[in-house]
Amino acid sequence: MSQKTDLDLGPLPELIGYVLRRAQLVVFQDFFTTFAPFDISPAQFAVLTVIERNPGLTQSQVAAALGIKRTNFVGLLDELERRALAERRQPARDKRSYALYLTGEGAALVRKLKAPLKAHENRMIARVGADGRDRLVALLHDVADGARNGAQIRPKASRSPRRGSAGI
Amino acid sequence: MSQKTDLDLGPLPELIGYVLRRAQLVVFQDFFTTFAPFDISPAQFAVLTVIERNPGLTQSQVAAALGIKRTNFVGLLDELERRALAERRQPARDKRSYALYLTGEGAALVRKLKAPLKAHENRMIARVGADGRDRLVALLHDVADGARNGAQIRPKASRSPRRGSAGI
Repeated sequence: MSQKTDLDLGPLPELIGYVLRRAQLVVFQDFFTTFAPFDISPAQFAVLTVIERNPGLTQSQVAAALGIKRTNFVGLLDELERRALAERRQPARDKRSYALYLTGEGAALVRKLKAPLKAHENRMIARVGADGRDRLVALLHDVADGARNGAQIRPKASRSPRRGSAGI
Repeated sequence: MSQKTDLDLGPLPELIGYVLRRAQLVVFQDFFTTFAPFDISPAQFAVLTVIERNPGLTQSQVAAALGIKRTNFVGLLDELERRALAERRQPARDKRSYALYLTGEGAALVRKLKAPLKAHENRMIARVGADGRDRLVALLHDVADGARNGAQIRPKASRSPRRGSAGI
């Protein structure tokens, strides 16, 4: 979808939030198209990746790592469990919190997604070049983490309510 | 809640889509907090801005300019009209398409939002510095427009008025 327009958009094209959102929608659209054959959303992909890399985490840990609200995360995990890609297991030690694991099928899917993921990412990188990608990713981390040039490390108090949701 | 984590996030922190989404959520969170007293969302702000700058556009034109789906746009505009900030007028010439205008109240609100918008944007710019902001905005436009180095689709001219322009 082209954003080309002769309209006067005023200050919008210069606002970080506006261009972030535009870019994110375009990238997610490519992601959705790429992963449509697997019926996997960006959020589902992130959750599968984190569980694969860190088997046995609690729901709260995975949700917090990805900045997903707990209520949204429960539904997301229900769906992955229904599709037999991930599972909750109740640890003997602590009955209050489930530990999360991929099933064999889930692990196989994550492996299968590697090639299309790389193709997707390469298309995005082609838009800015390899150097541009490096600069972009670093700048986006600075925006997300609130660090200027990596120097000021997250002076939380000065920055108002970011309440938890910095992920997907 | 901090996004700092000792978990292994695998390839996620290097994926353009993942860091885009993280940064976008953080910036939008600041926007929501800033504009909570006015009960204005980023999408509502964008629509008000475009109507203010281009009075008399059709719904389709505004929706297309902002990349908002038509169904979503109708609800969004209904809400702005209910709050007497914008209005649909039926042009005599073409009865099929409404033309959009701000009300006096809507125009006053847009003026009132200028200062908090600038404060919001300055907080975001502080995270990457002024030069970082310029690079970031240019890179994001390249991602969104699919142009490498701005050469293919987007004429550089349309991106230039960044530096001196009111700072927002």
